Amino acid sequence: MIQHPAFSVLEWSVLEKKLHLDILAQTESIFALSNGHIGLRGNLDEGEPHGIPGSYLNSVYEQHPIPYGEAAYGYPEAAQTILNVTNGKIIRLHVEDEPFDIRYGTLHSHSRELDLRSGILRRHVRWTSPAGQTVKVSSTRLVSFTQRAIAAICYEVEPIDTPMRFVLQSELVANEALPTAQVDPRSASVMTTRLECEEHYARETLGVMVHHTPTTGLRIGAAMDHVIEGPATLTVDAESSSDIARMTITAQVQPGERIRLIKFLAYGWSSLRSRPAIHDQVIAALSAARVTGWEGLQREQRAYLDEFWSKADVELQGDYQIQQAVRFALFHVLQAGARGERRPIPAKGLTGPGYDGHTFWDTEIFVLPVLTLTYPSAVADALRWRHALLKQAKERARQLGLKGAAFPWRTIAGQECSGYWPASTAAFHINADIAYAVVHYMEATGDLAFEKETGLPLLVETARLWRSLGYENQDGHFRIDGVTGPNEYSALADNNVYTNLMAQLNMRRAAETARRYHQRAQALGVDDQEIDSWLQAAEHMFLPYDERLKVTPQDEAFTAHEVWDFAHTGANQYPLFLHFPYVHLYRKQVVKQADLILAMQLFTNAFSAEQKARNFAYYEPLTVRDSSLSAASQAVIAAEVGQIPLAYDYLREAALMDLYNLEHNTQDGLHMAALAGCWTALVAGVGGLRSQDGVLSFKPRLPEAITFLAFRIHFQGRCFRIEIEQDEATYRLLDGEPYKIFHYGEEILISTDTSMTCPIPAMQVEERLHQPPGRSPLG
Amino acid sequence: MIQHPAFSVLEWSVLEKKLHLDILAQTESIFALSNGHIGLRGNLDEGEPHGIPGSYLNSVYEQHPIPYGEAAYGYPEAAQTILNVTNGKIIRLHVEDEPFDIRYGTLHSHSRELDLRSGILRRHVRWTSPAGQTVKVSSTRLVSFTQRAIAAICYEVEPIDTPMRFVLQSELVANEALPTAQVDPRSASVMTTRLECEEHYARETLGVMVHHTPTTGLRIGAAMDHVIEGPATLTVDAESSSDIARMTITAQVQPGERIRLIKFLAYGWSSLRSRPAIHDQVIAALSAARVTGWEGLQREQRAYLDEFWSKADVELQGDYQIQQAVRFALFHVLQAGARGERRPIPAKGLTGPGYDGHTFWDTEIFVLPVLTLTYPSAVADALRWRHALLKQAKERARQLGLKGAAFPWRTIAGQECSGYWPASTAAFHINADIAYAVVHYMEATGDLAFEKETGLPLLVETARLWRSLGYENQDGHFRIDGVTGPNEYSALADNNVYTNLMAQLNMRRAAETARRYHQRAQALGVDDQEIDSWLQAAEHMFLPYDERLKVTPQDEAFTAHEVWDFAHTGANQYPLFLHFPYVHLYRKQVVKQADLILAMQLFTNAFSAEQKARNFAYYEPLTVRDSSLSAASQAVIAAEVGQIPLAYDYLREAALMDLYNLEHNTQDGLHMAALAGCWTALVAGVGGLRSQDGVLSFKPRLPEAITFLAFRIHFQGRCFRIEIEQDEATYRLLDGEPYKIFHYGEEILISTDTSMTCPIPAMQVEERLHQPPGRSPLG
Repeated sequence: MIQHPAFSVLEWSVLEKKLHLDILAQTESIFALSNGHIGLRGNLDEGEPHGIPGSYLNSVYEQHPIPYGEAAYGYPEAAQTILNVTNGKIIRLHVEDEPFDIRYGTLHSHSRELDLRSGILRRHVRWTSPAGQTVKVSSTRLVSFTQRAIAAICYEVEPIDTPMRFVLQSELVANEALPTAQVDPRSASVMTTRLECEEHYARETLGVMVHHTPTTGLRIGAAMDHVIEGPATLTVDAESSSDIARMTITAQVQPGERIRLIKFLAYGWSSLRSRPAIHDQVIAALSAARVTGWEGLQREQRAYLDEFWSKADVELQGDYQIQQAVRFALFHVLQAGARGERRPIPAKGLTGPGYDGHTFWDTEIFVLPVLTLTYPSAVADALRWRHALLKQAKERARQLGLKGAAFPWRTIAGQECSGYWPASTAAFHINADIAYAVVHYMEATGDLAFEKETGLPLLVETARLWRSLGYENQDGHFRIDGVTGPNEYSALADNNVYTNLMAQLNMRRAAETARRYHQRAQALGVDDQEIDSWLQAAEHMFLPYDERLKVTPQDEAFTAHEVWDFAHTGANQYPLFLHFPYVHLYRKQVVKQADLILAMQLFTNAFSAEQKARNFAYYEPLTVRDSSLSAASQAVIAAEVGQIPLAYDYLREAALMDLYNLEHNTQDGLHMAALAGCWTALVAGVGGLRSQDGVLSFKPRLPEAITFLAFRIHFQGRCFRIEIEQDEATYRLLDGEPYKIFHYGEEILISTDTSMTCPIPAMQVEERLHQPPGRSPLG
Repeated sequence: MIQHPAFSVLEWSVLEKKLHLDILAQTESIFALSNGHIGLRGNLDEGEPHGIPGSYLNSVYEQHPIPYGEAAYGYPEAAQTILNVTNGKIIRLHVEDEPFDIRYGTLHSHSRELDLRSGILRRHVRWTSPAGQTVKVSSTRLVSFTQRAIAAICYEVEPIDTPMRFVLQSELVANEALPTAQVDPRSASVMTTRLECEEHYARETLGVMVHHTPTTGLRIGAAMDHVIEGPATLTVDAESSSDIARMTITAQVQPGERIRLIKFLAYGWSSLRSRPAIHDQVIAALSAARVTGWEGLQREQRAYLDEFWSKADVELQGDYQIQQAVRFALFHVLQAGARGERRPIPAKGLTGPGYDGHTFWDTEIFVLPVLTLTYPSAVADALRWRHALLKQAKERARQLGLKGAAFPWRTIAGQECSGYWPASTAAFHINADIAYAVVHYMEATGDLAFEKETGLPLLVETARLWRSLGYENQDGHFRIDGVTGPNEYSALADNNVYTNLMAQLNMRRAAETARRYHQRAQALGVDDQEIDSWLQAAEHMFLPYDERLKVTPQDEAFTAHEVWDFAHTGANQYPLFLHFPYVHLYRKQVVKQADLILAMQLFTNAFSAEQKARNFAYYEPLTVRDSSLSAASQAVIAAEVGQIPLAYDYLREAALMDLYNLEHNTQDGLHMAALAGCWTALVAGVGGLRSQDGVLSFKPRLPEAITFLAFRIHFQGRCFRIEIEQDEATYRLLDGEPYKIFHYGEEILISTDTSMTCPIPAMQVEERLHQPPGRSPLG
């Protein structure tokens, strides 16, 4: 995006200086506002033109049957798709008789700016209508972090030079027409669902609509109220029908005068509560917002973000693009998780309809670990959502003939929604991914209440799954056969190393936690024999190794397969899954996204330094990065094995994924995991941070271009600030009791009084590794 | 079925002595008549009641989109389903005002008999109407082997005791209502297609209808003409509308008189020919049939079958059930292939809508090898059908990124119709299966014209597929990874031994044939280098072996997997695929149907006798036979390794599959491969016949129950008769030049003058092997 002439790179905001319709849908994702409960795409106030109109409420979805050419036992019957709910963003303007539409007339200037410190989206327009009237329009929009049900817009319009009659229509619109879905499987399904109206109401400045979803029966309330400033002659009308509530303001405005409209918007939904209850709920939220007022909401928003940045900011010198990108990334990750409150963090947050609004494994492996160290309360909430789905996950495990819980590969409400099991049900690692996020959160926070109530049952039920999924053979190896690891170009493989290491951790931590909460574990049916069975399986976990190549195979048979014919694969044949059949991909050595590399990132102690270097060198020429999830992990391991320039390039790819639209589908929503990956590529990559087994360690190493890097993290109730320069790193404890960390393997004790500055040892410069032709980092 | 009290076991017919509505659909399959071009299910003449009404024309199908929950590159877009065409079997009878319907009134007697020597289905009924009139009805039906487009029915009705008014309606009915499809994936898809009428015509005794299929645009003609005998007062009316042509006979009939109606029925279809051309075609066929006459058609039918049985009959003493079953089997296999004439032999022949009327690999591996030795011209025709599909198969290979031809797993018209690629596209062995059938046919017949025109291109294009699918690794092993073998409970495995042996044969024979037809091969683009590449790949073909267990693994990783938990699998959980997900099945050692066992049957020289015994002992407790394809191969290998009583039990299971409805889906059509398997279990099993590399060898060994077995086979233009008793076997050449065969490894020369009687060596009695609990043979 930075390459686009419309954009400037600013430290604390994303600024679009000119409107380009060809990237409108992409900017709607980038300028999306959310608090994790409400999500509003950055659609223009006047509704049109749009790429994809989008107003979302976390977990409001509709369901539809999954069709199969050949069905089989255990296939999920219904899919879930995020719904575009009642759109409260719309404020239409008519200048004399002319609708304000930037596609007509003359657009003198148009700028939009997402302010990462204030948490608001500003827009400024100067426009002359086809009839020749010139107006200045500005709007400021926020979705409140502090008042979960509330969004607000301040909309101002003034005439230039001549008096004009303005008509403003502020609306709630249900059942908007949506563009038809694309062929790309990553975009959303076509939903023909219509919300059914239960109530519509408009009087004076107030409008309320209650609808419900026909199949899932979710009741959705939307309400708006307004504060209007303008000439004394201004009149206000209100009307409503089943799909629209509209407040109309009409006024003759003189040059120097303006109309200023504050629109408060409240949303609520429930699967249980009645129509009157939902009505009252949104009206009540509106009342509180009106009392706080527009300025009050902005103040609260700023204060919330000041607090966040004070503990999570990353500062950078030398690469202002990455500086912007990492703050943009943290801001959106925060938006996705801040007020989810026991609801999921979807792959696209609430920024677009991509992947049908589903949540996958990457929330636990990419997003939650970042939030654990920057905004941990969101992690506890997101994992409590998983905990709330245990019933469905246990039912699914039973259906699959397994014990414990089998979490869905993709879901909104807990049921498996994938119509292709080799890349979903078989990717059992999602269960250990959830366990990993639990373990990482517990190690980083020491949150005992969470551990007891939420962590223990999640660990126990997932450990049970692994114990029943694998088996110990005659050689005393615990094998996990026929599963799919993170690399989706290899499926149904035996002993995927990532999966086996994760399952090992899962079972060990389940055992250890069950022993600590003996009584509570007993209530879950855990006895000593079961704990021993987990420990034995973990102890005997089979981790294949290719003695001939001296590398760790991604899975047992991987290195025996033919290497993909990269030389005869054209640049236009990526991503491969859109141009080659699975039957071809699965048989070859080709890596869609980091798999063994990710294992080396999460299990830093399971591989020697030499092994890591050899493995990285082996997989690098096989990895095509047909997924936004890959670059961050490659950045992390590249940095670790001394491939610093390569690490920097991967860092840039990870950082600029959405701002540059590197995956060509930012229009469907931002990639939350890739955004989190930007932070990881910086902090775990060139920052060299690892946290395994509760130990914080650092091996920082800056690439040439970055002269200074500072980041803050939460750990064990403390806030740390780490400052890295080319030749030394300084570790500071900002609050809390003294703490021991490791710098290049050496233990150092830091306290609020004593920071430590340590030299960064010299590192041998390795020859740069190469990627498949045409697949070098995009940064 | 033999167990059902309604049935008697006769040597040369299948007799149902009493009508049981609960097995009506099953009997419709068993009593189906076909010549490979037309197929008529054994529906009652009066149309109702019925299980599944069925009138089929080979390759008349409709197409519909295949839906996917998650689509991906290379998935087939449309499926093909066999159509129930215009039903010409219907002859309704009204006795006074009462329709003849066996569900009402009193059924005094009802018998049906399929005569395997005459090729006709006879029915005799004595019925009293609810109003008290008693009638005798009989019908005889045939589908002509000699006049491909013709079926005929002789229908007779006479009053008992009192004069009666009869109304007979002889009809052609298009767009019959069909029962809704079942959940079982093996039954047919729901087709809501309606045939569109282009012409309907009825005058005097003649009726003609022309329809076409809406999507595939196939034009179907059906015509009927009648010869009527009856009282002088008899009147005839004719009428037609878009879905029906009807001839109505009305007569007052005295006791001692009768009405006799000969109905000639003609079918024709084309994707190209015009309505008038199709009309004329069926009228012409009718004319020829009328000239031949009813008695003439019966005579031709009998003569055709006499000729068939004289070269293909199997005689048996000691087990009259198997005697009946093997003739029933041969009769239906003949019916499926006799007049296919470059059209496929579907899995269910033309006996029902099961598997959507598709043709799979089992035609080439189970059906064609039997026809090769009993009715070889049908084999050449069926393989010419494959040859005609080369264009689509080459296109499919290109789509899959492969060279040569990739034949569809299931199809009617040549396009892949499977919506589940791991069990279809990945089952590449179908390509070598076709090559195997070609090789086996060529070795058995020496048909050089076929070899040059049809065999060579089929061998070349399939060899090309294998060469591009596999690869030679650093150790000089040619590997074929990620494919699915015959055992559909293991998919996407590396180096499936069956597949690799078949691919090896395929490439070797392609090379050898291409060298013999040098010029013709050049025209196909084959050069010496390509031939060498096939030979090298075949030479280096990797055949894994488990040194620890001393068994041949079904595929490279198979024996490393966990053994299925048979002890905790209930009898009601079979077939497993209806009760367990693929993700569970694929990870375990459990065999749906013979895989490595089938490899040992087809490649008798690739395994030592000891290895075969060890392998059989290993796989026997893992094989659940959730497929009708399994028992025959297990019978063959059980006999070879000395498990004679077990071989006999498998022979009985194979023989009685459809007559007993052992798979519980005979209602959807007969299992052609299992019927052929009955012959194979006898002839290759207890008869010990093998033909590999053009050599005929025998190791006969009768089970105790069978005191005598004689069978005839065609080979190299000769007809052989082999007679086996408990302690000796006699080999006779019925015609042709002297020929060398092998009896227990010893070469013997037989001629039309000299038969040879050889002693059967004593064999050590092995302890009986056991199957998974509850899965011992059903015979």
